[in-house]
Amino acid sequence: MAFDLSSVFPKLQLLMTSDHASVVSMNLFVALLCACIVIGHLLEENRWVNESITALLIGLCTGVVILLIRRGRSSHLLVFSEDLFFIYLLPPIIFNAGFQVKKKQFFVNFITIMLFGAVGTLISCAIITFGVSQSFKQLGIGSLDIGDYLAIGAIFAATDSVCTLQVLNQDETPLLYSLVFGEGVVNDATSVVLFNAIQSFDLNQLDSGIALKLLGNFLYLFIASTLLGVLTGLLSAYIIKKLYIGRHSTDREVALMMLMAYLSYMLAELCYLSGILTVFFCGIVMSHYTWHNVTESSRVTTKHAFATLSFVAETFIFLYVGIDALDIDKWRFVSDSPGKSIAVSSVLLGLLLVGRAAFVFPLSFLSNLAKKSPSEKINFRQQVIIWWAGLMRGSVSMALAYNQFTMSGHTQLRSHAMMITSTITVVLFSTVVFGLMTKPLIRYLLPNVKHISSAVTTESNTPKSHTVPLLGASQDSEADIDGNSLIRPSSIRLLLTTPTHTVHRYWRKFDNAVMRPVFGGRGFVPVEPGSPTEPNGHQWQ
Amino acid sequence: MAFDLSSVFPKLQLLMTSDHASVVSMNLFVALLCACIVIGHLLEENRWVNESITALLIGLCTGVVILLIRRGRSSHLLVFSEDLFFIYLLPPIIFNAGFQVKKKQFFVNFITIMLFGAVGTLISCAIITFGVSQSFKQLGIGSLDIGDYLAIGAIFAATDSVCTLQVLNQDETPLLYSLVFGEGVVNDATSVVLFNAIQSFDLNQLDSGIALKLLGNFLYLFIASTLLGVLTGLLSAYIIKKLYIGRHSTDREVALMMLMAYLSYMLAELCYLSGILTVFFCGIVMSHYTWHNVTESSRVTTKHAFATLSFVAETFIFLYVGIDALDIDKWRFVSDSPGKSIAVSSVLLGLLLVGRAAFVFPLSFLSNLAKKSPSEKINFRQQVIIWWAGLMRGSVSMALAYNQFTMSGHTQLRSHAMMITSTITVVLFSTVVFGLMTKPLIRYLLPNVKHISSAVTTESNTPKSHTVPLLGASQDSEADIDGNSLIRPSSIRLLLTTPTHTVHRYWRKFDNAVMRPVFGGRGFVPVEPGSPTEPNGHQWQ
Repeated sequence: MAFDLSSVFPKLQLLMTSDHASVVSMNLFVALLCACIVIGHLLEENRWVNESITALLIGLCTGVVILLIRRGRSSHLLVFSEDLFFIYLLPPIIFNAGFQVKKKQFFVNFITIMLFGAVGTLISCAIITFGVSQSFKQLGIGSLDIGDYLAIGAIFAATDSVCTLQVLNQDETPLLYSLVFGEGVVNDATSVVLFNAIQSFDLNQLDSGIALKLLGNFLYLFIASTLLGVLTGLLSAYIIKKLYIGRHSTDREVALMMLMAYLSYMLAELCYLSGILTVFFCGIVMSHYTWHNVTESSRVTTKHAFATLSFVAETFIFLYVGIDALDIDKWRFVSDSPGKSIAVSSVLLGLLLVGRAAFVFPLSFLSNLAKKSPSEKINFRQQVIIWWAGLMRGSVSMALAYNQFTMSGHTQLRSHAMMITSTITVVLFSTVVFGLMTKPLIRYLLPNVKHISSAVTTESNTPKSHTVPLLGASQDSEADIDGNSLIRPSSIRLLLTTPTHTVHRYWRKFDNAVMRPVFGGRGFVPVEPGSPTEPNGHQWQ
Repeated sequence: MAFDLSSVFPKLQLLMTSDHASVVSMNLFVALLCACIVIGHLLEENRWVNESITALLIGLCTGVVILLIRRGRSSHLLVFSEDLFFIYLLPPIIFNAGFQVKKKQFFVNFITIMLFGAVGTLISCAIITFGVSQSFKQLGIGSLDIGDYLAIGAIFAATDSVCTLQVLNQDETPLLYSLVFGEGVVNDATSVVLFNAIQSFDLNQLDSGIALKLLGNFLYLFIASTLLGVLTGLLSAYIIKKLYIGRHSTDREVALMMLMAYLSYMLAELCYLSGILTVFFCGIVMSHYTWHNVTESSRVTTKHAFATLSFVAETFIFLYVGIDALDIDKWRFVSDSPGKSIAVSSVLLGLLLVGRAAFVFPLSFLSNLAKKSPSEKINFRQQVIIWWAGLMRGSVSMALAYNQFTMSGHTQLRSHAMMITSTITVVLFSTVVFGLMTKPLIRYLLPNVKHISSAVTTESNTPKSHTVPLLGASQDSEADIDGNSLIRPSSIRLLLTTPTHTVHRYWRKFDNAVMRPVFGGRGFVPVEPGSPTEPNGHQWQ
């Protein structure tokens, strides 16, 4: 049986034998997080910097200070732990993204998102793999096999959803946000499939059978992960509605929502599914049903607590990447051939730019073909922003690189060490340089977009659906749960032109007739507040 | 330099090399936590069981199931990690206790609490040490030195604050709650002093010099820890007020409060102070100042998020103790002499009862001598409840026992193994048996106390100060910040009789004139809600 609890806890024992050094470093980390928050607040009005860049720079500075204090002899300052990242930091970020996402916007663009996330990632991966395998032979890096090249393709083809959250604003640019962020989420399933494929298939003889198998694999992963997330979300809604847990204690409701969200992620990991997809859909379902079944104070608490957890996790990741980047051991390997290292990083950055351009523009064109009204189409300026905003590579790339090229934090081969340092360089460069330029780029290309600088304003007015007035009505479609809105005359023309609308209508009917009576949700609970996306800001802010 | 970050992170790396087994056990733990919450909800109306007992029993059942599945050959099922406990689980529990404590009640009884926490613990420790050293020689346990006996005294003299939170209700019995819980908090400083003393002094030759040194040590620890907590709390209030962080983002405020609270605990650990005392006073200061400086939604969020974190940590601890108790390796050592093991546990339980009685009744008598009005005195029935409610030993005892008698989870000596199993027996017996009987005992001895069964009721009416009407007014003294209430005629007599009142009056004056203008707090922010202890329940519940 697999119930081997011993495997975690003796290690926990090892981890924290309360030596003074670990207390010192925890103090340092917590104090730095506080500093990041305060500095991030002070720089809020700044048009260039965002929170992630602040954290990254503070991390780098701390790394320099630590190096100076220890007089450069820092052997293994700290190792990036991919599991600290995947097990503790990533789930709250992605869950919160699902919890606060504008659901309508997301599902309206679903087909485009799938196109970008699945086909786009494959195109990008293929281009990067091909480019790397050609140029690295010329540069003489040596001792990398086809699996390594494919892995590099997968690592650098993945849009980092955490970075996207930082540079794009859901309220300012809802269409771009849902496209780039949704791509990042769907892309996780693609990455899992690619990584599994790299490890399990003989990739030297690709044929149509394997391609079909990969497609089947992707569909299975995507559907199974989504279903698991939806089912966990519905279960939490049902339990909280049926037992009316808020009757006795608000804390139990909040705890149950938190734990069930985390459970969905861990269950997905248990079944070798995509935890990111699962927890994202769990967040969507929880915000649609569960959130409406809890007491008023639980609603405020979950909305802000999830956002805070996600915010702290994001800041921690960037801080961590910043400090980690200065681990001198990694750089020692490449310090005798700095030219080669710079060449590798430049090649990777170039391939990144080309690989992303190679699918954003053609797929946007395809997506536009399917749409009738010009207001729904993705115009060229928006395409440029989609291309640019998805260029950043962050902690996911870092974690995958460590997974592929190190054995428990150590690199044996010279070529592997170079891949690690190149990944760090690409992550730092893309986050800082591309990240710094995103806000100004959006302002330059889309000057008429309303810019919201403070969270308080965001809460009171949500200028959504002014980019995509798909349903012919400017208010949120969720508000019209009364039957008569379904025969609104102005929407009949749109109903004929957009199949999405029909799907949406049937879903709404089904939701009202079957789902909400069982699982709760807005309209089926005594009080009727907004959804976590759009709270009625006048009551508490 | 001590900046050895490598010490934590390579271990984290070790900890979570994403082996499937650890994912399985995390799933198990999260699922069990959910089960505990749901079952705890269903048993809420039950007059015997409380949440901790539910979690303990579920843990025990899970232990049995795991044992059966692995057919009894579970070598080292899981090891109780004292650092998981002290670094991650304890801080949120104690912080939340300070954050939600009724401050007036706590400070009014401050002298009694100090008497119980410092002198009482010493008396109890001395009695247990003496009793153990005498009886263990007769039982022939062997190979325990004077340091071990003193450690056993310290381990079993400590009231477990986590258990107290579970059995006593702040709203039902505010005096008893503040006395027993306050004792548990102050007791932590005493324990730290005792443990340090055991390790650093030559205890075979006790004289008055060493006694004075110990007293000085205790005072230093107590004052330094309290100051550190107060300063961190004030710093957080000042930063949030000065920078008006809520202007841009609610999440930053919540994150800053959380991180600074945790920072206070870690700073105390860094300076070898009592983290429990520090984080407790940090919680008090934060609820008095910081909490009033944040936005309305941050107030709701922090109040419930801290309570939820504390609740989950408590449940986790009891679940963990339950599962851990069935680790078969520990019991193998003592299975050939079950009679001796039972004798040791019985002796310990008996000494526990005697040791606690030996200070609760005399010190209550002393404390009553100093008080004039009969309503302030602790009557005999209340003394019995104080004695009984402080009898439970929980995870703190467990953690200390592991610290003293094992080397990284393994016991070398037979006598040490027996001490571990006896501790487990005492913890299980005292939590389950004493815990089960506390609620009925309170109902039997204090039949006229209002019993509040649901959290929602608790929020809307807080029947405080009906046991101790010290300030001659039934409303919370914090409410009368307008000057005229200070010359309320009915309070003049009480003002002469109770010095506490005078101290309180001067503090209030100082608070209004100096502290609140600088650090914020009620009356110095635009909106004026209740304190986290007593929210205006009609607005959100």
